[in-house]
Amino acid sequence: MSVRLETGYIAPFVRQHELGMIAPQVLSAHEQLEGKTGPGSEFTGWLKLPGDFDKAEFARVKQAAAKIQANSDVLVVIGIGGSYLGARAVIEAVKSAQYNLVCKGTPRIFFAGASVSGAQLVDLVALCEEKDFAVNMISKSGTTTEPAVAFRVFRDLLEKKYGKDGAKERIYATTDKARGTLKELATAEGYETFVVPDDVGGRYSVLTAVGLLPLAVAGVDIDALMAGAAEAMEKLSVCDAQNDCYNYAALRNILYRKGKTVEVMASFEPDFAMMNEWYKQLFGESEGKDQKGIFPASVVYTTDLHSMGQYMQDGGRHLFETMVAVKKPRAEMKVPDTGEDFDGLGYLAGSGLSHVNEMAMQGTILAHVDGGVPVLVLETDSLAEHDLGYLIYFYEKACAISGYLLGVNPFDQPGVESYKKNMFALLGKPGFEQQAKALEERLKKAK
Amino acid sequence: MSVRLETGYIAPFVRQHELGMIAPQVLSAHEQLEGKTGPGSEFTGWLKLPGDFDKAEFARVKQAAAKIQANSDVLVVIGIGGSYLGARAVIEAVKSAQYNLVCKGTPRIFFAGASVSGAQLVDLVALCEEKDFAVNMISKSGTTTEPAVAFRVFRDLLEKKYGKDGAKERIYATTDKARGTLKELATAEGYETFVVPDDVGGRYSVLTAVGLLPLAVAGVDIDALMAGAAEAMEKLSVCDAQNDCYNYAALRNILYRKGKTVEVMASFEPDFAMMNEWYKQLFGESEGKDQKGIFPASVVYTTDLHSMGQYMQDGGRHLFETMVAVKKPRAEMKVPDTGEDFDGLGYLAGSGLSHVNEMAMQGTILAHVDGGVPVLVLETDSLAEHDLGYLIYFYEKACAISGYLLGVNPFDQPGVESYKKNMFALLGKPGFEQQAKALEERLKKAK
Repeated sequence: MSVRLETGYIAPFVRQHELGMIAPQVLSAHEQLEGKTGPGSEFTGWLKLPGDFDKAEFARVKQAAAKIQANSDVLVVIGIGGSYLGARAVIEAVKSAQYNLVCKGTPRIFFAGASVSGAQLVDLVALCEEKDFAVNMISKSGTTTEPAVAFRVFRDLLEKKYGKDGAKERIYATTDKARGTLKELATAEGYETFVVPDDVGGRYSVLTAVGLLPLAVAGVDIDALMAGAAEAMEKLSVCDAQNDCYNYAALRNILYRKGKTVEVMASFEPDFAMMNEWYKQLFGESEGKDQKGIFPASVVYTTDLHSMGQYMQDGGRHLFETMVAVKKPRAEMKVPDTGEDFDGLGYLAGSGLSHVNEMAMQGTILAHVDGGVPVLVLETDSLAEHDLGYLIYFYEKACAISGYLLGVNPFDQPGVESYKKNMFALLGKPGFEQQAKALEERLKKAK
Repeated sequence: MSVRLETGYIAPFVRQHELGMIAPQVLSAHEQLEGKTGPGSEFTGWLKLPGDFDKAEFARVKQAAAKIQANSDVLVVIGIGGSYLGARAVIEAVKSAQYNLVCKGTPRIFFAGASVSGAQLVDLVALCEEKDFAVNMISKSGTTTEPAVAFRVFRDLLEKKYGKDGAKERIYATTDKARGTLKELATAEGYETFVVPDDVGGRYSVLTAVGLLPLAVAGVDIDALMAGAAEAMEKLSVCDAQNDCYNYAALRNILYRKGKTVEVMASFEPDFAMMNEWYKQLFGESEGKDQKGIFPASVVYTTDLHSMGQYMQDGGRHLFETMVAVKKPRAEMKVPDTGEDFDGLGYLAGSGLSHVNEMAMQGTILAHVDGGVPVLVLETDSLAEHDLGYLIYFYEKACAISGYLLGVNPFDQPGVESYKKNMFALLGKPGFEQQAKALEERLKKAK
């Protein structure tokens, strides 16, 4: 198994019988999920995806990636939320947090359309203008404001640079299989299209074409990624006391029910920082509803031991910590033996940094436990494709089970519409006139 | 004033008399801070710093920066915690979150020694090897593990590339004014040195040479930055009901005392993401002690409205949100008028993105207030140097006052030592043998 849950540090906070006490609820959650009887079951296509994905489309993804690699220095991926985070997180975890600076032989990948910032868009345009580039527009509908704005900008740029015919060879639309304005435009213009499946929500979509095309362009081995997820799908399919994924979901809820309202996901590899963000979206959007849910936060150590470390050690005790331990990091370096000891590092000369980092982690775990923080450890063999695919599926299934244990629908996100409706009204979108007046009144009063 | 606190949205959560009720405590905190009678007063040198900093050193910082700009493509800044976050945050806020990709005419700035990751260090070495580069080693003592390891690596690289004499012209040590191994080495080798003042803690040090040298190299106008901080120092010196900085500190504590245990710092500019991290260090390390304190978290919108947005709208109500509103962003772009409306954006054609972003923010504020989230707004004129200097001082002073209101010493960080001691023991550092045995026993038992 690529990923293991270590619970050896949890004893001071969770009594031995507690996992047994919650087991019937875990079984019920398992049955809701696997039997598709739970709320949101129409969005559980991710559950069997690593086994029954569309092989023909998967082959087309690889072909398109090869074409982009051959004709482009840059791929601009346009998307927001689930159409942004997964691909970026996997590229950084597998390749490097500095992928765009260190990549060799594969295009730079820039993510646009994930904000409304003009400053960001101006920078991204400057980074593409003088390069050969392609665009992957990812949107189920095609009308989400942020990506739609960016698509206008980059499509315009492409058409000016390559002409309308040249541009259409460089635009890839990942969208609904049949409906929506992006699908219609793609058909009319002749863009190659890939499918955002109906039964997989945005935050669960990294192993669909949504994530796979950018990943393949960056040189991520998507076969290995899917194989890792498939292994997880098989290994985590039985509801028993050995299912680490279910135990993780159960322990999160046990801790939440005793007042641990914040989970801090902690890794000791900077490459994992965006995977932390992906985790925050996955769990935050799945569980944060009906005025409850664990608040997901994250840190990267040892960096943040010199930032959030004081809080973790001795601040408010309303939190628990989940450490992601990477057994074999992407690269190794030894502490140079300079034959001196002015810096007090002599005792480490010749040691591998992976060893130093591991001791830092173990030292931190013990320190935080002593400080009153329940610590769980998710150990992964590596952040390479197979193991990361396993970890992704592990998180996804843990999130679903955890949501059912909490008593929410882990697959909807009704709250995301609230800001949008207000924004449309304030921007004068036709059809929102009534709301606009009331909102403007409130804003005026607040000033 | 460059920065204003808007409290118009807080009415449903904080009653009018509450600020008055806490005012005597604010006055007492003010007197503790300004009179240097509070705990940690030996570390309040930052308070008068924008007025009485060392002008001769400031001039040397600018000279050194000009020299580095002239002879280097890359500056490697080595430091952790306060010796890392401030400079990086200001560079990204003023210049761009993509500074290293878009910088023109100023060196790339890489931050090393802020983790023990071999993968990260291997990447950074690869990014420097074939370039002309300089090193700014920042450490009060010179023996902190993470930066000390990185310094061994990059000093070695410099000496191999430029010889010992060439290297010493490219190494800048920011360290204690008189003591410590880095100071001794710098004196012996002839490195130019800058001072980490005794009375300014790491997280308050961005306006000392610690932050200023990297900032000046990146082309940040450090005169304007200091002038902005000096303006804040003057404007925020009186304890009255008009002091927005004090009101912010007071409201944070009022909210904390009614169970709002998490503060989410939210900005609508991606360039602000590292300032969020700086805020987390400043407040987390200052307040997270004695098992209390607000847990600092952050988001960047609208990106994270599609990630943490659901949680913010309707998750656990143990949080409040502080929005950083940037009146005039660094750059503007208009929604292109493509003469079509397939994407439903026709009504926005020709609108500036700064307007769209502002409406997104106002819509979000009203939505979150409706969802039960107390929202404060910190409005800054811009993220340019003067305004950012003002904002930095605003945060620093708010943090000090807030810490005293909470009843902690906002200037120490005793908890940071705990993981270090364990790590030293597990790594076999001489002098830690006794602890090592006990820790190894515990680790074995947990497996």
